[in-house]
Amino acid sequence: MSEDANSPDVAQPGQGGGPSRRGFLTGTFALGAAAGLQAPPAAGAEPAKGGAAVNPRLFTFVGGKAGGWSVASAKAIVGDPLPAVERVDIVHGAVDALPDGGKWQLRGVTSNVRYITGDEKERMAKKQADLGRPKATHAALIPIRKNAEWWALTQDKRRAIFEETSRHVAIGLKYLPAVARRLHHCRDLGVSEPFDFLTLFDYTKADAEAFDKLVDELRATEEWKFVDREVDIRLVRVS
Amino acid sequence: MSEDANSPDVAQPGQGGGPSRRGFLTGTFALGAAAGLQAPPAAGAEPAKGGAAVNPRLFTFVGGKAGGWSVASAKAIVGDPLPAVERVDIVHGAVDALPDGGKWQLRGVTSNVRYITGDEKERMAKKQADLGRPKATHAALIPIRKNAEWWALTQDKRRAIFEETSRHVAIGLKYLPAVARRLHHCRDLGVSEPFDFLTLFDYTKADAEAFDKLVDELRATEEWKFVDREVDIRLVRVS
Repeated sequence: MSEDANSPDVAQPGQGGGPSRRGFLTGTFALGAAAGLQAPPAAGAEPAKGGAAVNPRLFTFVGGKAGGWSVASAKAIVGDPLPAVERVDIVHGAVDALPDGGKWQLRGVTSNVRYITGDEKERMAKKQADLGRPKATHAALIPIRKNAEWWALTQDKRRAIFEETSRHVAIGLKYLPAVARRLHHCRDLGVSEPFDFLTLFDYTKADAEAFDKLVDELRATEEWKFVDREVDIRLVRVS
Repeated sequence: MSEDANSPDVAQPGQGGGPSRRGFLTGTFALGAAAGLQAPPAAGAEPAKGGAAVNPRLFTFVGGKAGGWSVASAKAIVGDPLPAVERVDIVHGAVDALPDGGKWQLRGVTSNVRYITGDEKERMAKKQADLGRPKATHAALIPIRKNAEWWALTQDKRRAIFEETSRHVAIGLKYLPAVARRLHHCRDLGVSEPFDFLTLFDYTKADAEAFDKLVDELRATEEWKFVDREVDIRLVRVS
């Protein structure tokens, strides 16, 4: 599954072998096979309550006063905003309790692709970059929720809206490799999350304008009519 | 989404309004709209650690000495068995710690459909029954894990194997409404689970033979070549 990493539909799972808490920033995330459910938890991931191991594909985004990313702006695009914070900490694993000054945590797991075809996957694999390039000092965390109407659609109808109508992959491809991304799914966690997806993007300062165009294009699509909550948090790496 | 309940591809989520711990047995599970992530947790669901609410679509199957279902047999079809237990307790919500005599717990969430088309959904909706019919005194809990090769496939290829090659829906349709079912997804929980799916079926004593044929047919398909662990636990309701 290594060719799948950072596709608009999936992200590379952290593998065993010890990615650090912020490993994606330093390139220590190994790409490769989907981390099996039976895989040992990633090094550094705290054990979950009840003795169960943390899913090695789980990431937690903590908004507060600490973390490697400074919040440059945060804007509710649709629906309610999130409480304002100064920093975002991106943790590979679970966070038991909010740290001092923490206002929120959002959890999500990287997973298998849901919509793209083999052909689209190949085209993307040829162009895409991984998160964590040293020059990618700018990032965006965009949590999204889709409405009940979307989730009641069958797979064929969701795929048709995603690509045949909205050109989600085609739009994304135009911005590769400038924009790297990782998608996290929140809908099927054991806890109720306020969003269905968390997407983390990174890019250089020079590409910030291109990133604005990318999100503008996506927000104008048919697919986005099903989005009933979206927050756009822009981040700058703390040196 | 009520027409989707018990499809081979999804199960009815418990809704708000107070399903009991074993509500699906007594018909108190309301069918209907997919429980949104923002929905309040189902009555009776314990709050998750860290203050987060339990996903209202979460179910926990506890193997041990207590529960409403007596284990008639448990057989590893592929891969490792589960520790032998006398009873299975089916809990709508989370279980903090194993009760006395508890040997295992398996968690899963009902979710949106992943493979079926609108047409298939309609055909199934016309035939299927809900879990918990009073006459359905027999049940089967079948946890399944699929291999990394399956999860690395794109959606179009998985769908083609699921139906065009393996006729998963077509086979299932033959046994409706005798066999009712609910599918739970485990792969994208925050904790590592040993299986990807848990399917719970129920049927009358007279239909137990038909159920054997159903699982035999499915296990002979191309799709099942990707199954690398499967345990078949047959249950009888404790009067």
